[in-house]
Amino acid sequence: MRGVNRDDCIELVEQRLIRFFTESKLRSAALDPSYLQLWEALERVSRGGSRSRPRLVLMAYAGLGGNAATEAASLATAFELLHTALLVHDDVIDRDLVRRGSPNVAGAYRKHALRKGMNSAEAGHIGASVALLAGDLALAGAYQLLRSLHVSDSVHRALHAVLDQAIFASVGGELLDIEFSADRTMPSIERILSTARYKTAVYTFEAPLQAAAIFAGATEEVRLALERFGHHAGIAYQITDDILGVFGDPSLTGKSTISDLREGKRTILLCHAATKPEWLLVENLVGSTGLTISDAEKIRAVLIKCGSKDFATDLALQHARAACELLDVDGIPSLLREQLSALLYKAITRVKMETSAA
Amino acid sequence: MRGVNRDDCIELVEQRLIRFFTESKLRSAALDPSYLQLWEALERVSRGGSRSRPRLVLMAYAGLGGNAATEAASLATAFELLHTALLVHDDVIDRDLVRRGSPNVAGAYRKHALRKGMNSAEAGHIGASVALLAGDLALAGAYQLLRSLHVSDSVHRALHAVLDQAIFASVGGELLDIEFSADRTMPSIERILSTARYKTAVYTFEAPLQAAAIFAGATEEVRLALERFGHHAGIAYQITDDILGVFGDPSLTGKSTISDLREGKRTILLCHAATKPEWLLVENLVGSTGLTISDAEKIRAVLIKCGSKDFATDLALQHARAACELLDVDGIPSLLREQLSALLYKAITRVKMETSAA
Repeated sequence: MRGVNRDDCIELVEQRLIRFFTESKLRSAALDPSYLQLWEALERVSRGGSRSRPRLVLMAYAGLGGNAATEAASLATAFELLHTALLVHDDVIDRDLVRRGSPNVAGAYRKHALRKGMNSAEAGHIGASVALLAGDLALAGAYQLLRSLHVSDSVHRALHAVLDQAIFASVGGELLDIEFSADRTMPSIERILSTARYKTAVYTFEAPLQAAAIFAGATEEVRLALERFGHHAGIAYQITDDILGVFGDPSLTGKSTISDLREGKRTILLCHAATKPEWLLVENLVGSTGLTISDAEKIRAVLIKCGSKDFATDLALQHARAACELLDVDGIPSLLREQLSALLYKAITRVKMETSAA
Repeated sequence: MRGVNRDDCIELVEQRLIRFFTESKLRSAALDPSYLQLWEALERVSRGGSRSRPRLVLMAYAGLGGNAATEAASLATAFELLHTALLVHDDVIDRDLVRRGSPNVAGAYRKHALRKGMNSAEAGHIGASVALLAGDLALAGAYQLLRSLHVSDSVHRALHAVLDQAIFASVGGELLDIEFSADRTMPSIERILSTARYKTAVYTFEAPLQAAAIFAGATEEVRLALERFGHHAGIAYQITDDILGVFGDPSLTGKSTISDLREGKRTILLCHAATKPEWLLVENLVGSTGLTISDAEKIRAVLIKCGSKDFATDLALQHARAACELLDVDGIPSLLREQLSALLYKAITRVKMETSAA
């Protein structure tokens, strides 16, 4: 795959997704027309994603000298379907009805039920129930894509273990997230970081990189180095995301800078601030459903004044630096090192580019 | 495994389940103590089941001459975990909080949240969210058990396809069930039967039997015959279940004979009755939340008078007979034929033994 245009490879992922959904739609249509509709809804949700996990798989696989482009695309697509499954179930847990500007599975089925004359609570439950099923289908799809690979038994076992660990960690992270939301006390910074790692970093960075290393036949040392890079990169990325969720420029990030504060989301920023005396000034505002734009401004001022923004920014940089140092291993070609470092640098420096002057 | 005591084999399934949960609890405890609690809750839910799917796997595998008892137990356990996953997610969809007399995952976490001072709606949502995650874990567990088998690549692919098809069909059946509940019109008898097949029969009968055949190295003819037996047996079983859900003796079945009627569950009984003039007498009672014991008596009388009970009983017998005839294939030893027929006969004749005189 070296020398092959990476855009061609991501195109192979799109094709593999189309093939997976086409086959599934044919199977479902044979069962019942309404099942076909569910598959169409799931396919719509999977459209328009950034494909960042498949891209990472392909970058690492090609960078390690792998050249089975079509098979690599199938492996990469397994991670995209895992992402879809986790997104769809996460939306049920967060009671979100919209994803990327359109109704998600729950939102679409809720609308449909409302149109049939059901009340809002019943329609919401139908939407959530169907989304639960859709997530199960996407999860089974990830296993199916992995099983479609033409690899040796031992490689399949190793890839399966990576997928299994990604699901295990993501579910654990999601559970901790739910526990935080049910708890009034602020978790420790360590707990916030490990939750972010489990919920997102493992399946977004560590697992795709490990899978690419296994599929490329890399040494155990390389696989481990990439896993550790993924670990620190994932944490750096999550912290950056949290900073942008409060200080970002919505016109650049596409994300509200109020909803995290309104929800009282347990981020590194709030966790750090909660240990400072200034926190008392805004404690009651954070997590209040009636939070206004000027309340948010007040909280931001406190987060800057008590050093929480700087603390989080530094911490993200530290993890990014640690991540890049871990790539300094025989067997990881310098081109791949540069690509991964550049990817991470770009992700981290979003803070500078995408924050409004504060 | 021929000659091996079948009780010993089901004991191997219990041991395999204990091993799976022990390993998972160790993994989860390393992540966070609260994750361990979730695994403990999932293990509690899996306790005390009838293990009917593992039993079917073991019966068919031993009957076809298979003798790798420990491995067969792992395969059988995969189907038990699939069952757990589907149960836990089904409970979320049905908003059930109790399973086998104890709080299920959703019920236990709801209680816990209420004790923390949350209101009922929020606590219910937390319970449902955690149960969603628990079901995902059990689903991943089924794949993990299957992957733990020491089988050739092609056997693993074939078993994986059976598991995949079981999930695909169950989710489709569950979706149709949700659609029925959202619809005021009565579905056709064919649609009721195929929904029952997809939702329950495939993963309860067809898939375990097919998996056993594949694992035992049986011919394609045998695999197909067992699949078809499972198809008809599953439908016969489901119809029997529906009859017992209305006419059974709760002290023998352990099931209420009112909740199906109160819920207005789309069964073959109601579907048949809805085409008869007597239906108008009870149409408004079926599915009413305030349904009384005497209302239920009135509905039962109508179901008997318009021949719905007889129709359903006959249909179950027809499918049972068709199922047993399909076993008449070279390669299915007569002992296995007898065992499977006896199993089915016992399931079907529950109607006679477990109905109150009506």
